[in-house]
Amino acid sequence: MDDVVEPDAADMQLPRVLAALADPHRLASVRFLARNGESWCTQVMQEAGLALSKSTFSHHLRIMREAGLVTKRIQGAKGYARLRKDDVDRRFPGLLDSVLNAEAPARV
Amino acid sequence: MDDVVEPDAADMQLPRVLAALADPHRLASVRFLARNGESWCTQVMQEAGLALSKSTFSHHLRIMREAGLVTKRIQGAKGYARLRKDDVDRRFPGLLDSVLNAEAPARV
Repeated sequence: MDDVVEPDAADMQLPRVLAALADPHRLASVRFLARNGESWCTQVMQEAGLALSKSTFSHHLRIMREAGLVTKRIQGAKGYARLRKDDVDRRFPGLLDSVLNAEAPARV
Repeated sequence: MDDVVEPDAADMQLPRVLAALADPHRLASVRFLARNGESWCTQVMQEAGLALSKSTFSHHLRIMREAGLVTKRIQGAKGYARLRKDDVDRRFPGLLDSVLNAEAPARV
């Protein structure tokens, strides 16, 4: 499909996961996926209120996938993104909940 | 003392705190301060096993201070760093514990 390597849960690296979360657009995407489950990528971009070009969103998606936060599945001509909450929770207990429960940042 | 602005707890921004944590050297410093309490900066650098120049460590310290993770106090000719655990816990409950309890990264 593409050349992005999504790590197994055991191979997730904390600095990389934190860096993937350390951006308002990626945080908004993670919050959207946590609320809505697996979603069409275009829908994430539009409904999470991300004023981004498709290529910029793809760049953010790659960072989230390479960290292990998100997995992508292709069906037909569409890409679907899903938060790997169970995997991240197993690898770094409590981390994602603390981030998701933090007061939401100002609209990006 | 210096021009670094350490934010009040209420003004801490999640992306900035996550970015400050998203580096192996800064993570090692945060872990060291969590274990040892307020510490002489040179001691943090040496005992946390950070193979860094003093100026590079100062750069990392600035990032941690500007995010709100760490505060610095000058006494005599020495600088002392302290993890602002209570402040970070109040602002982002559970975040720091999940990071501190995560399996330690490989030695940096």
